[in-house]
Amino acid sequence: MLNARRLGIDTQSEVVVFMRRDCPVCRSEGFAAHSRILLRAGNRHIIATLFQVTGDLIGDCEAALSESAWERLGVEEGDAITVEHPDPLDSLGYVRSRIYGNTLNENALHTIVRDIVEGKYSDIHISAFVTACATRPLERSEELALTRAMVDVGERLSWNAPVVADKHSIGGLPGNRTTPILVSIVSALGLTIPKTSSRAITSPAGTADMMETLAPVELDLKTMRRVVEQEGGCVVWGGAIKLSPADDIIIRIERALDLDTEGQLIASVLSKKIAAGATHLVIDMPVGPTAKVRDADTAERLSAGLVAVAGAFGLKTFVVPGSGLQPIGRGMGPALEAQDVLKVLKRAPDAPADLRDRSIALSGALIELAGAAPAGRGEAAAAQVLDDGRAWAKFQRICEAQGGMREPPVSQHRQPLLAERRAKVLGIDNRKLAKLAKLAGAPESKAAGLELHVGLGDSVEKGQPLCTVHAEFAGELAYAMNYAHGASDIFVLHDI
Amino acid sequence: MLNARRLGIDTQSEVVVFMRRDCPVCRSEGFAAHSRILLRAGNRHIIATLFQVTGDLIGDCEAALSESAWERLGVEEGDAITVEHPDPLDSLGYVRSRIYGNTLNENALHTIVRDIVEGKYSDIHISAFVTACATRPLERSEELALTRAMVDVGERLSWNAPVVADKHSIGGLPGNRTTPILVSIVSALGLTIPKTSSRAITSPAGTADMMETLAPVELDLKTMRRVVEQEGGCVVWGGAIKLSPADDIIIRIERALDLDTEGQLIASVLSKKIAAGATHLVIDMPVGPTAKVRDADTAERLSAGLVAVAGAFGLKTFVVPGSGLQPIGRGMGPALEAQDVLKVLKRAPDAPADLRDRSIALSGALIELAGAAPAGRGEAAAAQVLDDGRAWAKFQRICEAQGGMREPPVSQHRQPLLAERRAKVLGIDNRKLAKLAKLAGAPESKAAGLELHVGLGDSVEKGQPLCTVHAEFAGELAYAMNYAHGASDIFVLHDI
Repeated sequence: MLNARRLGIDTQSEVVVFMRRDCPVCRSEGFAAHSRILLRAGNRHIIATLFQVTGDLIGDCEAALSESAWERLGVEEGDAITVEHPDPLDSLGYVRSRIYGNTLNENALHTIVRDIVEGKYSDIHISAFVTACATRPLERSEELALTRAMVDVGERLSWNAPVVADKHSIGGLPGNRTTPILVSIVSALGLTIPKTSSRAITSPAGTADMMETLAPVELDLKTMRRVVEQEGGCVVWGGAIKLSPADDIIIRIERALDLDTEGQLIASVLSKKIAAGATHLVIDMPVGPTAKVRDADTAERLSAGLVAVAGAFGLKTFVVPGSGLQPIGRGMGPALEAQDVLKVLKRAPDAPADLRDRSIALSGALIELAGAAPAGRGEAAAAQVLDDGRAWAKFQRICEAQGGMREPPVSQHRQPLLAERRAKVLGIDNRKLAKLAKLAGAPESKAAGLELHVGLGDSVEKGQPLCTVHAEFAGELAYAMNYAHGASDIFVLHDI
Repeated sequence: MLNARRLGIDTQSEVVVFMRRDCPVCRSEGFAAHSRILLRAGNRHIIATLFQVTGDLIGDCEAALSESAWERLGVEEGDAITVEHPDPLDSLGYVRSRIYGNTLNENALHTIVRDIVEGKYSDIHISAFVTACATRPLERSEELALTRAMVDVGERLSWNAPVVADKHSIGGLPGNRTTPILVSIVSALGLTIPKTSSRAITSPAGTADMMETLAPVELDLKTMRRVVEQEGGCVVWGGAIKLSPADDIIIRIERALDLDTEGQLIASVLSKKIAAGATHLVIDMPVGPTAKVRDADTAERLSAGLVAVAGAFGLKTFVVPGSGLQPIGRGMGPALEAQDVLKVLKRAPDAPADLRDRSIALSGALIELAGAAPAGRGEAAAAQVLDDGRAWAKFQRICEAQGGMREPPVSQHRQPLLAERRAKVLGIDNRKLAKLAKLAGAPESKAAGLELHVGLGDSVEKGQPLCTVHAEFAGELAYAMNYAHGASDIFVLHDI
């Protein structure tokens, strides 16, 4: 019997327990460093990776827990914890089965996903599963089963509306912040759109990061329901709602491996939407050499997969392909992207036209899909509600309902990146731009990021600014500029 | 700039750094929990996984290190450490390439293995590599390249002898402790056999654990050389010598996944032997339904692979298949296995005949392979040197040279497992026996394990002991007996 101690160590979803190497339990159970062990407290239990401690960092009879372990086990300081060897992880047999070339059935995938969400898989196990799913494309039956499993192990929302609209963007295109505009348009037309968004994973800002500069986004489910009942729509952070929790865990491993597979992508996107209770979904799919989807063939195959799997769950889905050649809007980073959004909603004269056009295209498609406009009339309806100010009014009401509208912060340090010669802009590397914005501090520093001054095809004079880097700290600005000057071809310039 | 602090946390080969979430470096660099970060101190650098700490466990300007990080970075308490984002891990591209179906060339495998040994791979990355190598069997060219890479990244020994004999056992058969006997026989005949052995990974005792109950085994390379120059042979723990360090890291991940592939096995076994400077190698390969190699086809294919790959490195190899149906000897666990070894060497009347026979068979094959006896005369030569006491005398001298011979410890707690009825023993489950011995405390408790009283085909009366469980602590004995009474068919009994 050991006493729980909170060490305040954040290991993300990895569950870790720290115990003294010479504690009686380690000795008698034969636990070694990096063993997987079962911890029980009250009627809860977790499996954790053991890190053994020598010296006096923790006491003899203490089981010190990482934050993830503390939360999952639901203990208080000093609570009694018992430890033992866990049962063998039977579902690993299914993972091995796929490694050896077999297709997994619904039961196998459900068991794996459940074990992952219950914390029974270490990073080693999840990585093997992710890799095993990447060596051969998932069969359609596996995509369906994985999606269902990911829905089943989390919360599932239902809404008091016949049509629940939703939107997703296949990422890779910086600054593509159509969501707040689309939600405002669609809900202003009377549709229900309870939109949850994510924070940045690898990008300089997620929609939730951007939206947070305008209004609170960490709403609990009850508050979110109140906002949606009142205004028809919302833009909140999905992390607080715990839809498809397996997805967040699996994505962390995929990111570490830089491994993106279509099957996992389909299950990831759709499980969140199905769990969120969506009935009609429009998917924004930018296609371009530095976007996530790089060519038309991939876009077509992926679209077909998304529509087919979504259909099996009764989720009507329409994919809107678009150019992924250059960023949308001018800002990159939470506050700078928010400025673009505000300009479009406010119909400012300098509003970025590409962001407005893309928002209208996606809104139009969703409106038609949901039956709120006849075929071919969706875009016009969307443009009208934007132009007559209803979308802007709706957006303000949504922000107020979410806890109060606010002004995005402004950066304290700025420096332009200048054209070294007179030239024409032939290419813009989205990935390098995103890296530049992140080095400047985005998304942790809300005002950090960059502002684009040119687009594809523009001509620039020598010394003309291509973009301005924004930072909250001088050190971060220097760090970003250092990268910008070292990286060739963030902008591909051609002499004219 | 942060100050090094040793936290005394053993994370095995995983390299971890603990930093405060609110430390200025985390903020300015945008490090998040579970980030991989580059640490520099003096002219050394490591890549570590970041665990972020809230509260006052560590100070504001401290980088607290796991034991593995502390050792690799070679710092003292308070030393200055700088942290930064690591370069992208380019060799992950090769891992992804194999995931996507390509064969890896020598450069790719060398780069991956070097990065693994340099600590650049997290467990997530190593797991993906291991899995990617398991989804399609390694090509012969990949087996060769992986073996060479694993040799190249570690120490490589050379010996002042034209013939350097060695022996390896493909595991899975408890109690198969032929090594000390074989080393004594072979070195008594004048051959050089600098034998390094491993500690238990998943078994109740490794040869090094067993040998440690008879003599010191943690010798540095200099002492090992002295023993070998003096006696021709030794039996020491290989972990202190750091041959094929990649192997130890990869094996830990394979074990967590319970994933054993032939290609990895070949590279694992041979890289250690080639690095150890062996020229002639005999491999003990027990074959049976609960051994590691389960059938004759697998044995044949694996043997061919081992001989072919070894041959490419000039290492003459001979595989001796044998029955893996039941354990060899009677003891299981370090001290109990040592007793079996001593009885064979001392020619005790109750010496286990199977252990003696297997030792002679392997020694004979090795003697012939090394040209120390004509074809067909190896076993007779081995038997003679065992029967006339030269092997026993040699073993005692080896133990003295390693630091002094000692008596194995004796267990304080014992309990027999009894036959529930009159029956014939038709099967013995090696895996379950091994688990029973481990639950009793082996190999951490040197005297723990079990003693078999019956073999296949034996008839037993009701109440007759099938085996005796030995433990050092009453709690462990109870734990083991609890498992024994719950597990069906450790012994398959058939009514007579």
